[in-house]
Amino acid sequence: MQKRNKKFLKEGELFPFLLASIKGISQILLIENAITGIIILLAITLASPFLGSITFISVMIGTLIAKIGGADKQAVNAGLFGYNSALTGLALSLFLDGPYNWIIALIGAAIVSILTAALMHFIKGIDIPILTFPFVIITWFMLLISYKLETFQLNPILAPEILSNVTVDFSGEINWLGGFVLGIAQIFFLDNIYSGILLFIALFWAGWRFGVYAIIASAIALLTAFLFGGEQSLISLGLYGYNAILTIIAVSIVFKESDNRFALYSGMIGASLTILITASLSVWLLPFGLPALTMAFVLGTWIFLGARKVMPMF
Amino acid sequence: MQKRNKKFLKEGELFPFLLASIKGISQILLIENAITGIIILLAITLASPFLGSITFISVMIGTLIAKIGGADKQAVNAGLFGYNSALTGLALSLFLDGPYNWIIALIGAAIVSILTAALMHFIKGIDIPILTFPFVIITWFMLLISYKLETFQLNPILAPEILSNVTVDFSGEINWLGGFVLGIAQIFFLDNIYSGILLFIALFWAGWRFGVYAIIASAIALLTAFLFGGEQSLISLGLYGYNAILTIIAVSIVFKESDNRFALYSGMIGASLTILITASLSVWLLPFGLPALTMAFVLGTWIFLGARKVMPMF
Amino acid sequence: MQKRNKKFLKEGELFPFLLASIKGISQILLIENAITGIIILLAITLASPFLGSITFISVMIGTLIAKIGGADKQAVNAGLFGYNSALTGLALSLFLDGPYNWIIALIGAAIVSILTAALMHFIKGIDIPILTFPFVIITWFMLLISYKLETFQLNPILAPEILSNVTVDFSGEINWLGGFVLGIAQIFFLDNIYSGILLFIALFWAGWRFGVYAIIASAIALLTAFLFGGEQSLISLGLYGYNAILTIIAVSIVFKESDNRFALYSGMIGASLTILITASLSVWLLPFGLPALTMAFVLGTWIFLGARKVMPMF
Repeated sequence: MQKRNKKFLKEGELFPFLLASIKGISQILLIENAITGIIILLAITLASPFLGSITFISVMIGTLIAKIGGADKQAVNAGLFGYNSALTGLALSLFLDGPYNWIIALIGAAIVSILTAALMHFIKGIDIPILTFPFVIITWFMLLISYKLETFQLNPILAPEILSNVTVDFSGEINWLGGFVLGIAQIFFLDNIYSGILLFIALFWAGWRFGVYAIIASAIALLTAFLFGGEQSLISLGLYGYNAILTIIAVSIVFKESDNRFALYSGMIGASLTILITASLSVWLLPFGLPALTMAFVLGTWIFLGARKVMPMF
Repeated sequence: MQKRNKKFLKEGELFPFLLASIKGISQILLIENAITGIIILLAITLASPFLGSITFISVMIGTLIAKIGGADKQAVNAGLFGYNSALTGLALSLFLDGPYNWIIALIGAAIVSILTAALMHFIKGIDIPILTFPFVIITWFMLLISYKLETFQLNPILAPEILSNVTVDFSGEINWLGGFVLGIAQIFFLDNIYSGILLFIALFWAGWRFGVYAIIASAIALLTAFLFGGEQSLISLGLYGYNAILTIIAVSIVFKESDNRFALYSGMIGASLTILITASLSVWLLPFGLPALTMAFVLGTWIFLGARKVMPMF
Repeated sequence: MQKRNKKFLKEGELFPFLLASIKGISQILLIENAITGIIILLAITLASPFLGSITFISVMIGTLIAKIGGADKQAVNAGLFGYNSALTGLALSLFLDGPYNWIIALIGAAIVSILTAALMHFIKGIDIPILTFPFVIITWFMLLISYKLETFQLNPILAPEILSNVTVDFSGEINWLGGFVLGIAQIFFLDNIYSGILLFIALFWAGWRFGVYAIIASAIALLTAFLFGGEQSLISLGLYGYNAILTIIAVSIVFKESDNRFALYSGMIGASLTILITASLSVWLLPFGLPALTMAFVLGTWIFLGARKVMPMF
């Protein structure tokens, strides 16, 4: 390993590694584009320089482990081993407290890279991407450890509840513009309007379709959550929107094939479906006090991508 | 889509579509037989005309989505995309309250059709049928949404409980005849004796073996639940019986192959195993207040069908 | 079946059957070695003759069902259908009370054999061993039944808790030597030092590497649990150690292939990962009052074995 490290630091290896890492950040939005990655990193750093740094170190850890482990070079260079690590480092440093939270965040970023590889192998046969599933699973697992190991300190905003005691406050006014712009920011756990605007720019840079579809998904999400009677506080914070945006990008752009004539409609239905999945998931997680993260996007997208193999029109 | 719809309404397409739908209802009992489907629909309508209508509309929605999506025609015509939709529509309109419960039931019937396609693809490699798994998952997910979205109103019979507070009342007399006849009716959430008798007729119409095996399974279920000490109220209502009936039909008749010399015994053991699975599942679900539905049938049957690939005698 | 039983009792069949059963016991430690199996059985019997008997009868039930079912002879003779049954019989007779607990334990041992076959088939495509997954699942399921069926009586040490009420006592001194020796014993639910020593002998008999790696894993487990701030009572009882030992044996010895240059390091990282998985799992299970069993070993090993297919160096 000593030898490998030496070689790794040569100039000829450093730039491709940084490029793979920055692309790993853009892959959070299912995009392989270095400039998009840089704009995203800016958006996070704008909201919090600490979070920006953790995100960048995390994505490098994930990419480095894949390189050392001998993973497929093309996949590593496309950033496919980095995005789950980036999100995990980001989420754990936010939802954990205490002096060691950043160490635990980076350990989580490393573990998620191993799990990513394992899951890639496990679902290879069904020809479906792993999306952000490893990030969600590892983050949930790591957060719950706080009830058992002293060094893990949970942020008190994550409080478990008993289902029979739950009361929901449906009153209040929805902040439509806030909900609209913050949807994209919540993918990165941000509630900063300027970060939201930067993230839309990152999408448009990668292609107009990414930006326009994200706008459509955000609108659909707001409308669906409103019609079904979601809490105004969650809608206004964009918490019903971020899964919808990721889902329409995955279903209608990135994993669309020429057979899928109704791909735009599928993505739109998938986007509204994520509202229902988010609502249900958050109830399943109530007894554990865990956040729903991007699981609604993962499940919603898997359902549509899987269904396509049997119903090719969608 | 406009064109497709026009064509769909032609006389030559309408009858096959209705036939596929009615066969979808018979597929709830793992049977492809239009007359059996009609008798089942009668049995449901006899207990409640509202539930009968919801069931029929739901099965048509599921079948229609599969047709539009371009699914395999033979599978669509056999009703394989309808039965999960029928059950989901039925269950959601029963377990949800409020003025919009029927709309949500039909939305659920549509979603389950997409999930059915996805799951068919996901488990294709292991050569196992999906059974009623999509129905159970979607119904559980949709019911829990009621804690988060205002339009979803849960029927108050579904109340979550904390495990440490649970007390079970084992006293009372078992109504053996009731438990025996209602087992088959509970597949459709009915506790009407006449519906139960009609459903036995629907089974015998499809073949004497279906009827006789269902009677065997009902008897085994009653006996097993009694020996292990189940609650008399649940046994008397047939709630320990319906999974046993479905399991013996799947294991000993429908998915039996010539190698499986002990298939009848496997089905009988599978039927008694569903008592244990039902009991355990209902405890797992207590904190969420959810009904066990037909998950015991799905798990019990999957275990035996999977085991057969490794232990071909069973 | 009558004929088969007759033939089974012939002298020529009895010895191979007993050999397969005793090897089934050694397979709990991922070893196929009859002497190792006998030493393990001694170690259990030393702590409790009742548990020793249950273990032996359970492993025979599992092996017998595989034989009757017509499973692959080589796998049966290697003990691969026995070890999950042995552990299930052991666990259920410990965690259930009442006069019928041993009958339920043996029923569990039989069911787990069927599930083992099913799972072997289900995961065949991804080329990963089932490990002790069937044992964990069936034990969890059987234990929860005690809230629903009268004949199942739960041992009062298994009490469900509400997450918001949980308090953990981190005070006290760690018994380092106890934790070190009991780690191996806890694989078999024992907290007897002499049994622990016998089990180390069983490992060394199978090969020095098994013994030495187990010592390394035990040390890593103690250190990791201490550094992350685990409860001294759990560490001192070896409850953070047993999954680490199994994981290093699986990752660094049994399932290592020639490509895996860093296999020893992978096993060591896997061993320390089981501490985190154990801690998290025990929180997930708190509302149900269930023990974590060897699930951390199963998950930790699956992650590394799966990751290897994509990152062959590990």
